[in-house]
Amino acid sequence: MKQSEVTVVRIYLTEAERAMKNLLARLHDQEKVRGVTVFRGIAGFGRSGVMHSSTLLDLSLDLPVVIEFFDEPAKVRRILAHLKDTIPPGHVVTWSANVNEG
Amino acid sequence: MKQSEVTVVRIYLTEAERAMKNLLARLHDQEKVRGVTVFRGIAGFGRSGVMHSSTLLDLSLDLPVVIEFFDEPAKVRRILAHLKDTIPPGHVVTWSANVNEG
Amino acid sequence: MKQSEVTVVRIYLTEAERAMKNLLARLHDQEKVRGVTVFRGIAGFGRSGVMHSSTLLDLSLDLPVVIEFFDEPAKVRRILAHLKDTIPPGHVVTWSANVNEG
Repeated sequence: MKQSEVTVVRIYLTEAERAMKNLLARLHDQEKVRGVTVFRGIAGFGRSGVMHSSTLLDLSLDLPVVIEFFDEPAKVRRILAHLKDTIPPGHVVTWSANVNEG
Repeated sequence: MKQSEVTVVRIYLTEAERAMKNLLARLHDQEKVRGVTVFRGIAGFGRSGVMHSSTLLDLSLDLPVVIEFFDEPAKVRRILAHLKDTIPPGHVVTWSANVNEG
Repeated sequence: MKQSEVTVVRIYLTEAERAMKNLLARLHDQEKVRGVTVFRGIAGFGRSGVMHSSTLLDLSLDLPVVIEFFDEPAKVRRILAHLKDTIPPGHVVTWSANVNEG
């Protein structure tokens, strides 16, 4: 299988953060990322130490979400440079991977 | 913790693609992969640029799904070679990781 | 974007395993992990080869779940050493990544 290098990005937010929808729109409209997938967690906690869980009704709007995408390393670096003022420290994880070219 | 090397695989599809169920059955029945997990995204977009979101009822059958598994690097290479005609380019991401041996 | 190295951890369990809730509480209360997210799969199978799927009602309590977190490599090593008797072999996958420092 022919492959090329990509950088995988996972951005950790919660549903309550407005950042989530804006970010998705931006990745789609401006950054023209190849593909993005958003996952909702069923529970989690962040720096605040506060637990977010889908079993607690009153917290149901603040579940963790992860925005995941991958693209060429140079393009990902550019995108993250654009986003650096909108995402708090400790919320963007990246690593190298390979993608099939068909 | 004793560890051994594995290759992690994430395959990006949508629920509407028949490929999804066939692939899962194949990984289970023929390839005898150690373990597979399927995740459903709540939103996303692919090469087409069309947004898929669980908030739009009419698109609810075309949400993104990710099929994830990991196994020994040589076994993963064999499996991906078998699958190369059934998965479109740009949809299979792999990287090296370690797994606990107990 | 300034970055530092982290180890990403994904622990594969099922909802039926009591280990899941205990582990989450432990990571939160004792290990003081920076952040944890729990994802529920919609289908999957493990070593047993038994398929777990959200479309089969009677198996709905045994869906796959993944507990994901990341932290400094040395801290992750310590945490995994503490957990090694509570998680079966082949269920903890780790890899190196970078996190944004803001």
